[in-house]
Amino acid sequence: MQIGFIGLGRMGGNMVRRLSKGGHQCHVYSNKPEEGTALAAETGAIAAANLGKLVAGLTAPRTVWLMVPAGKITQGVIDELSGLLSAGDTIIDGGNSNYRDSVARAATLAEKGLHFLDCGTSGGLFGLERGYSLMIGGDDAGVAAARPVFETLAPGVEAAPRLPVKDGGPLQPGEAGWLHCGKPGAGHYVKMVHNGIEYGIMQAFAEGFALFASANDPVVPKERSYSFDLPAIAEVWRRGSVVSSWLLDLGAEALAGGKGLADYSPRVADSGEGRWTLNAAIEQGVATPVIADALFARFTSHDDLGTANRFLSALRNKFGGHDGVPVKTG
Amino acid sequence: MQIGFIGLGRMGGNMVRRLSKGGHQCHVYSNKPEEGTALAAETGAIAAANLGKLVAGLTAPRTVWLMVPAGKITQGVIDELSGLLSAGDTIIDGGNSNYRDSVARAATLAEKGLHFLDCGTSGGLFGLERGYSLMIGGDDAGVAAARPVFETLAPGVEAAPRLPVKDGGPLQPGEAGWLHCGKPGAGHYVKMVHNGIEYGIMQAFAEGFALFASANDPVVPKERSYSFDLPAIAEVWRRGSVVSSWLLDLGAEALAGGKGLADYSPRVADSGEGRWTLNAAIEQGVATPVIADALFARFTSHDDLGTANRFLSALRNKFGGHDGVPVKTG
Amino acid sequence: MQIGFIGLGRMGGNMVRRLSKGGHQCHVYSNKPEEGTALAAETGAIAAANLGKLVAGLTAPRTVWLMVPAGKITQGVIDELSGLLSAGDTIIDGGNSNYRDSVARAATLAEKGLHFLDCGTSGGLFGLERGYSLMIGGDDAGVAAARPVFETLAPGVEAAPRLPVKDGGPLQPGEAGWLHCGKPGAGHYVKMVHNGIEYGIMQAFAEGFALFASANDPVVPKERSYSFDLPAIAEVWRRGSVVSSWLLDLGAEALAGGKGLADYSPRVADSGEGRWTLNAAIEQGVATPVIADALFARFTSHDDLGTANRFLSALRNKFGGHDGVPVKTG
Amino acid sequence: MQIGFIGLGRMGGNMVRRLSKGGHQCHVYSNKPEEGTALAAETGAIAAANLGKLVAGLTAPRTVWLMVPAGKITQGVIDELSGLLSAGDTIIDGGNSNYRDSVARAATLAEKGLHFLDCGTSGGLFGLERGYSLMIGGDDAGVAAARPVFETLAPGVEAAPRLPVKDGGPLQPGEAGWLHCGKPGAGHYVKMVHNGIEYGIMQAFAEGFALFASANDPVVPKERSYSFDLPAIAEVWRRGSVVSSWLLDLGAEALAGGKGLADYSPRVADSGEGRWTLNAAIEQGVATPVIADALFARFTSHDDLGTANRFLSALRNKFGGHDGVPVKTG
Repeated sequence: MQIGFIGLGRMGGNMVRRLSKGGHQCHVYSNKPEEGTALAAETGAIAAANLGKLVAGLTAPRTVWLMVPAGKITQGVIDELSGLLSAGDTIIDGGNSNYRDSVARAATLAEKGLHFLDCGTSGGLFGLERGYSLMIGGDDAGVAAARPVFETLAPGVEAAPRLPVKDGGPLQPGEAGWLHCGKPGAGHYVKMVHNGIEYGIMQAFAEGFALFASANDPVVPKERSYSFDLPAIAEVWRRGSVVSSWLLDLGAEALAGGKGLADYSPRVADSGEGRWTLNAAIEQGVATPVIADALFARFTSHDDLGTANRFLSALRNKFGGHDGVPVKTG
Repeated sequence: MQIGFIGLGRMGGNMVRRLSKGGHQCHVYSNKPEEGTALAAETGAIAAANLGKLVAGLTAPRTVWLMVPAGKITQGVIDELSGLLSAGDTIIDGGNSNYRDSVARAATLAEKGLHFLDCGTSGGLFGLERGYSLMIGGDDAGVAAARPVFETLAPGVEAAPRLPVKDGGPLQPGEAGWLHCGKPGAGHYVKMVHNGIEYGIMQAFAEGFALFASANDPVVPKERSYSFDLPAIAEVWRRGSVVSSWLLDLGAEALAGGKGLADYSPRVADSGEGRWTLNAAIEQGVATPVIADALFARFTSHDDLGTANRFLSALRNKFGGHDGVPVKTG
Repeated sequence: MQIGFIGLGRMGGNMVRRLSKGGHQCHVYSNKPEEGTALAAETGAIAAANLGKLVAGLTAPRTVWLMVPAGKITQGVIDELSGLLSAGDTIIDGGNSNYRDSVARAATLAEKGLHFLDCGTSGGLFGLERGYSLMIGGDDAGVAAARPVFETLAPGVEAAPRLPVKDGGPLQPGEAGWLHCGKPGAGHYVKMVHNGIEYGIMQAFAEGFALFASANDPVVPKERSYSFDLPAIAEVWRRGSVVSSWLLDLGAEALAGGKGLADYSPRVADSGEGRWTLNAAIEQGVATPVIADALFARFTSHDDLGTANRFLSALRNKFGGHDGVPVKTG
Repeated sequence: MQIGFIGLGRMGGNMVRRLSKGGHQCHVYSNKPEEGTALAAETGAIAAANLGKLVAGLTAPRTVWLMVPAGKITQGVIDELSGLLSAGDTIIDGGNSNYRDSVARAATLAEKGLHFLDCGTSGGLFGLERGYSLMIGGDDAGVAAARPVFETLAPGVEAAPRLPVKDGGPLQPGEAGWLHCGKPGAGHYVKMVHNGIEYGIMQAFAEGFALFASANDPVVPKERSYSFDLPAIAEVWRRGSVVSSWLLDLGAEALAGGKGLADYSPRVADSGEGRWTLNAAIEQGVATPVIADALFARFTSHDDLGTANRFLSALRNKFGGHDGVPVKTG
């Protein structure tokens, strides 16, 4: 089908490639014109010079996919687009927007007769080949309009063995790798929780490998020191173990390449989704200690003030005369 | 090769099946004789009536695999076996023993000239078909003696795509699904950490699905309630998402079958490995908040005393006159 | 001085008593008229039948203190009051409002020439005798107007020994037990963090006493069982120990009275401040694992769905055939 | 009474001073002879040149108090002493020994007819004036023998107001500031839990003050920035608030003196008791998330490997191309 596509960065560019390969006619726009030109040359997409021309090039009812940074940029594009589109058109936000924003946007756009879909998109750099896991919120009409696009972007049922309980039966929702999760906001809510879980899984692996590295540390007393081969351990777990997973595959690749973990920063950023998951947990009164601690580990990794720890040292000094030089415990 | 196999329960029985299918001659023993008889009939293994006969039926240098409950039972079998075996023989403990016990056992058995391998075995009920991820500690001679067995039990390199960084090159340690992790204790140490990570991953998923269930709860105000289809969400994540993993596959199967989560207890046991991981973290001075919180969630799930919470209610009552009836927050 | 006082519940009533005893002329109003009448009879305060009469009875520039439930009720009273008061008057919100609301209210009221002070009030039921710790946000003029009231409500410098570093010098900010913390919102922000800390301290004690109760549990193996006298332990810590504190005093009282902890519910409510503290930590990127886990313990205490734990049991069942009956670990 | 005292460091020296002032005849020994000589000159204690002379100077049945570093040094002194003392004598270990060691020591010494008391001692540098909170394990005879010493070292009932529930009644166990907690090990167990709680309280305060410092950080957007006066906030909470406590007093003193928190290290040591508390929680199956997180915060403060965080950065890089430079979140 014909689709407008706005935002041609690491994620967006690959999605246009996958859509073009799947036979869709993509009309693309980036605020960096050279991205559009290059992608058009590569894929046969049609690059538009601005949003007005992008919309003008599409036949109503139009479907336009946004893959731009969440927050003000997404809002700005939606504001401009909503003045250009016509009733019955569909806007899809495939970025990592806060689901509360998506709820509000769907309501505002509905007043103009526009469909709005919030689509959580997972898969990262590998989605081009592997397909994208799509979690969609919004009305049925919008989902129906964009269905061919979802079918192409998603990995398809063959990307994983069907579950024993379903095998041989008719295809169930979600099995093709995309899912209409519910009303507006539902897609980004599910994506938010997905990322919260991702934080927890990442931290679980990180803690485990930290134990290995610690046991290898030369300061450890000999009787409890080891010489663990971290890349080999990640590798052995990739086959047959309970923790086999895509994140483990990526970790194994990172450990095995270059200088291993020394290539990566001990300061870890977070992108907002972990925070939103925790906010939702607070609002709903649900205990999420693992997701919280995973988020806090990242906060701590770039804590330059050290206030909390200095306060602890101050108390230790006051009650016990301790001078705050930590004992090496290995 | 010829191997003695002791312990024919859920794990051990399947391992004998996989070994027999792989052409190994298994001499088996269970303290429940009918298990041995049945397995012999099914697989062509030779069932022994007691440990003495099992050892007598094997040609030196012998290899004997134990798949019995960790702790006193394992110790008892090892004590008896060590009186029956001869210098140069090898005992493999494939169970979930504490690595500290394995270090001690290796030292004791070495004095008698026996090799001892501690082998962490992951894969559970699915290992028969999927193969077992094997993490092995002990001396090189023991590993060399048992290598054909490891090769058969492990999933083999083809069970997962080779990593891009290794693809096309010679096979690296661990790629076949088994790994000699180091000196005695190293195997069970790696398995212990594996299970600690497993706790964290499980809890991360559990928290995420709890958020969905909470948003579905009829008590939630309509504007932030959803009707999430938990089985379908698990399904859509199985393909293309960052959290795709074997544990997610199992969760998806559980959610889709029977009455879903209502089939399962809100009280969760732990098997010891999570505790040992946390003990090791304490000894090594490594922060493992996610693994700790995952363990604590299980402790709390069968806390019948409620002391901590009662104490909180008592304090709230004393300073604020609160009566302890929790507000429903949904 | 003359002060209007709205809200005569457990907190408000005692505050009027303390103010009256301190020589202030209180004009009081409650939406339960009998509370006003009774308090007037007891303290010499003047009870008003409605807000209009309350305001009419005060001489401009007026100061009115609100001690009503946070949220919609506070907003409603402020809305009504702001239509009755004149430029130059001061409203003080002494309740547990969210500091974000206070920031907004100060801005709205400033447009009408009204001063707004957000005053976090700590001390609970004991404040009548012990005095209230007051954390105040807002403009200098409002603080100056209400200063005599703060002086009376606060415990005064003699309530605690002066710090060695300050002893003998002039009185420093905060030493009298009240503090102008900064611009609008600062008072409720500081009170919010105070309560977040309170959650953490309460949980720390709760965990400690849970360890004692667990060691006393008859299921514990004899060699590591004890017969700890919880009330006596709380008592011994009240004198000379590092953990001596007002919360410990309250806990000691609760343990020593009636049937001890059996008098209190294992389900613990939360009042919102802990959640807001965590929201602020998320917004500011500050790790607050202890405050988070203290909040989560309360969430878990009234989790009737058990989704997370059921999910864990489901996974254990799927990979290991475990049936989810927890082992008693005592 | 007459008492032998071994170990004259920061804690021990002050305890001898308090005992001497209380009329007890102290025979003292330090492995640094000058400490003994100086203390004898100051207090009238009798300094012994070695353990043999110390014991020889005491009249049977003797009581000897140890205040030396836990672990090997304590064990060494006990080993030597037990060869010098006679049946019916009493050894008191007032240090921070692991309660498991105390259980073993009591059993070993009982075989020789010696009483052994494990005495947790809280109060730190301030105990000289404030008195020490004493938590004692061991047999009744030993406690009876040393009772006069406990009475003098403890703060006494007047150090805190009696609880309302007890006021006017006869003195209850613990009210004088010392408590016989139970059989051998009980004293150090209670002290261990005390310190675990202390970790949690310290971390709760540390997190709260970190929130204030973060809100003051110039990088914070103006609309949510504050200029909190941390020393003044600590001060205002000292009077009338729910979090008033001895640790808050110490924190207030630290914040108000010198350059405030800048005087103290962001690296925080731990002394072992927090670890043991967590080990006990694991053994007993009790959830102690706050104590665990408080301990982990210290571990993280001197994590020089950064393995866990580097692993997270590696995963982020692999799935999303992120480069690991953390966004400043203020």
